[in-house]
Amino acid sequence: MTEVFHLTATEGLKEIEAGRLTAVNWMESCLQRIFDREDDVLAWEHIDSEGALEKAHTIDKSGGKTLAAGVPFGAKDIIDTYDMPTSYGSPIHKGFQPGRDAGCIAITRAAGAILVGKTVTTEFGHRFPGKTKNPFNPAFTPGGSSSGSAAAVGDKMVPMALGTQTGGSVIRPAAYCGTVGYKPTFQDINRNGVLPNSPSFDTVGIITRSIDDLALFRSVVLEEEIRSISPPDIATLKIAYYPTTNWVKADAATHEMLESASASLKDAGASVTKLTLPAEDDFDKFHKTIAGWEFARTVAWERLNHHDQLSDDLRDGRMQNGVDTSYEQYRKATSEVEALKQKIDKIISNYDAVLCPSAPGEALKGHAFTGSAIFNGLWTMLGTPSITLPIRTGPQGLPLGIQLVSARNGDRKLFDVAQSIYLKLGEN
Amino acid sequence: MTEVFHLTATEGLKEIEAGRLTAVNWMESCLQRIFDREDDVLAWEHIDSEGALEKAHTIDKSGGKTLAAGVPFGAKDIIDTYDMPTSYGSPIHKGFQPGRDAGCIAITRAAGAILVGKTVTTEFGHRFPGKTKNPFNPAFTPGGSSSGSAAAVGDKMVPMALGTQTGGSVIRPAAYCGTVGYKPTFQDINRNGVLPNSPSFDTVGIITRSIDDLALFRSVVLEEEIRSISPPDIATLKIAYYPTTNWVKADAATHEMLESASASLKDAGASVTKLTLPAEDDFDKFHKTIAGWEFARTVAWERLNHHDQLSDDLRDGRMQNGVDTSYEQYRKATSEVEALKQKIDKIISNYDAVLCPSAPGEALKGHAFTGSAIFNGLWTMLGTPSITLPIRTGPQGLPLGIQLVSARNGDRKLFDVAQSIYLKLGEN
Repeated sequence: MTEVFHLTATEGLKEIEAGRLTAVNWMESCLQRIFDREDDVLAWEHIDSEGALEKAHTIDKSGGKTLAAGVPFGAKDIIDTYDMPTSYGSPIHKGFQPGRDAGCIAITRAAGAILVGKTVTTEFGHRFPGKTKNPFNPAFTPGGSSSGSAAAVGDKMVPMALGTQTGGSVIRPAAYCGTVGYKPTFQDINRNGVLPNSPSFDTVGIITRSIDDLALFRSVVLEEEIRSISPPDIATLKIAYYPTTNWVKADAATHEMLESASASLKDAGASVTKLTLPAEDDFDKFHKTIAGWEFARTVAWERLNHHDQLSDDLRDGRMQNGVDTSYEQYRKATSEVEALKQKIDKIISNYDAVLCPSAPGEALKGHAFTGSAIFNGLWTMLGTPSITLPIRTGPQGLPLGIQLVSARNGDRKLFDVAQSIYLKLGEN
Repeated sequence: MTEVFHLTATEGLKEIEAGRLTAVNWMESCLQRIFDREDDVLAWEHIDSEGALEKAHTIDKSGGKTLAAGVPFGAKDIIDTYDMPTSYGSPIHKGFQPGRDAGCIAITRAAGAILVGKTVTTEFGHRFPGKTKNPFNPAFTPGGSSSGSAAAVGDKMVPMALGTQTGGSVIRPAAYCGTVGYKPTFQDINRNGVLPNSPSFDTVGIITRSIDDLALFRSVVLEEEIRSISPPDIATLKIAYYPTTNWVKADAATHEMLESASASLKDAGASVTKLTLPAEDDFDKFHKTIAGWEFARTVAWERLNHHDQLSDDLRDGRMQNGVDTSYEQYRKATSEVEALKQKIDKIISNYDAVLCPSAPGEALKGHAFTGSAIFNGLWTMLGTPSITLPIRTGPQGLPLGIQLVSARNGDRKLFDVAQSIYLKLGEN
């Protein structure tokens, strides 16, 4: 058997069920992995090893039969926890202790999963980077804003971590760190206790190393019955291949990966159709207008009282966009997007999945820029579920992912379809 | 001149501008009013008289020229404040000190308005009442969940208070306490730092004693230019009179008030059309399904860890509904409501305002029940702006209000129309 920390959540739970693993062994292995690797990866803002081990002992003693009993997990440090500080990636809030757990944390803990610590976030979940490095090569960015969550799971420190996405903050770092990342349909996972960025888009996401784990934690956090993955035959699938209007901004390796994925699925009998969408040239503009207007008001206390403790990135970027945007411009954009959501749902619900890049390419060298969200922001804005699957290694030895998207509320079916595709393309 | 605490915000600002009033005099008068009346009304969870007076002194010294310089205000105690505790109406959080101001507080303060204190809320902004009494007669409920905000403004302790509405939590108490209450278009006023209840519906609202003040504080909190009210000629108005399918649940005084308001507007030359809306029999059901599902997950930490400190009302009401509602039921309801929002906007945008009751009648005797939201929940769910205007005194000597509603994003025009109607009907 490989070392315990390699296990996915679903695998680990099976080992416990079979009596071959205890929650304490699992936790010890993950903590050891963190201990061995954290100096290089810097995924964590706060670690509570003692508390985590204590909880693992309790689970072993009680023979815990809850859905996720003993699974170690992490949570992005913009998600409130009653027993660990939450700093929102900002010196203004360093060490702040919230009074309650966010709903998603409380529910996940109630299912027996054990929060190991808080993972590094960019400043307020926007762009200014934290300390985290890419676990595949510390000279590269892990992506952001869920930097620590993606790095911790990619480095096998924990099998699952919660993140959030307003532009591309789950899917992009998940792809950069070689994990399976998932942004649900808008307003699936409760956002209370999560620092808002742009409330029209903010979405809590899940980062794991398997689709089974996504399905497990989606059920856990929605408090719904577990439904196991049932991958359909590839030959029955209708895929919309959507290079997007930003295709020219993706690199050669990504072009090749997508073209080849599309060809493989076709060869296996799937129907693959090239897609264009209404208003796609305006997607970025709408996202910028809405996110800017909302963000400037969401982070108003800091803007108005702690302006000098904000990064230039934040002040001159999204916040300034927001200050420069009028209410009328904001409302024009929200009305357009509301209509687009329905229009595009209608189009893509004719397909089992939309296939597109997760990011323009591999993670970028250096740590100043967490990478572009141009292949993510549209789906966050439209509220559709999306998954990134790590199917390649790029020319720099870093992971490359493909993104699969479906119409809103199609999350469960998307898991099934993603599993078929992952089984097929993961072999490449 | 009447006593200073009677002044609306707009009136007080004019007096300061004219050099006939200082911020300190204004604040002292409001604090004196609170001191004289608080034992009977119990509107406040926390009062910071010293801090408020100090800020008033600073404004007088600086000759503050900000939009709302020196206006005393209150805020419902589910809205976070960095310098005052926020208890969310629950013993679980008694005395909790947040780390930042909610956006709406930070922005309002930056405009020079002075937060006097935190007003009493029901438990988590739901139904279990706080200590507040109706300022017109302490034997009656002030309504809820923005109980203290409505009571404080109705009793002239402050000219403005912020509240929130998920069902009828601004409009109903505002009507019961004889104030002018306003629930904006969904997602107008930023909700960050406001404890969520049901995120699909939660809306920050403004309670004042004039429409001019609503317009002032709407501009302040959206950081938009002030635009003064410009009431159109009644004879040009197209009014939709909408008794709603819950008409039988309103009392005789409300029936008479609405019928007579409708007749007066017609007499004055307005076009008045009786309205029915698609799916109106399902409004309550959709609201209950969505609010329940979301609330159970929003207050998950308390549900899972402090179950015995929740009221029976909360546990057995909305929370239990939520636990009993499946994800599929939830998503069916959100899809239906999304389509309805557009359909109903289209219908009511043919009118300058929809006229309907603010509540079934006067405030109820006793304090156990804050009253029914049956005339409010639909508008909160549909995201439309609504205003309550106090135009009558009912048989028990308590205020009665009419509600005016428009299509989403029609807030500013609704202020103009409401002013015309208030000038006409307020005389009765």
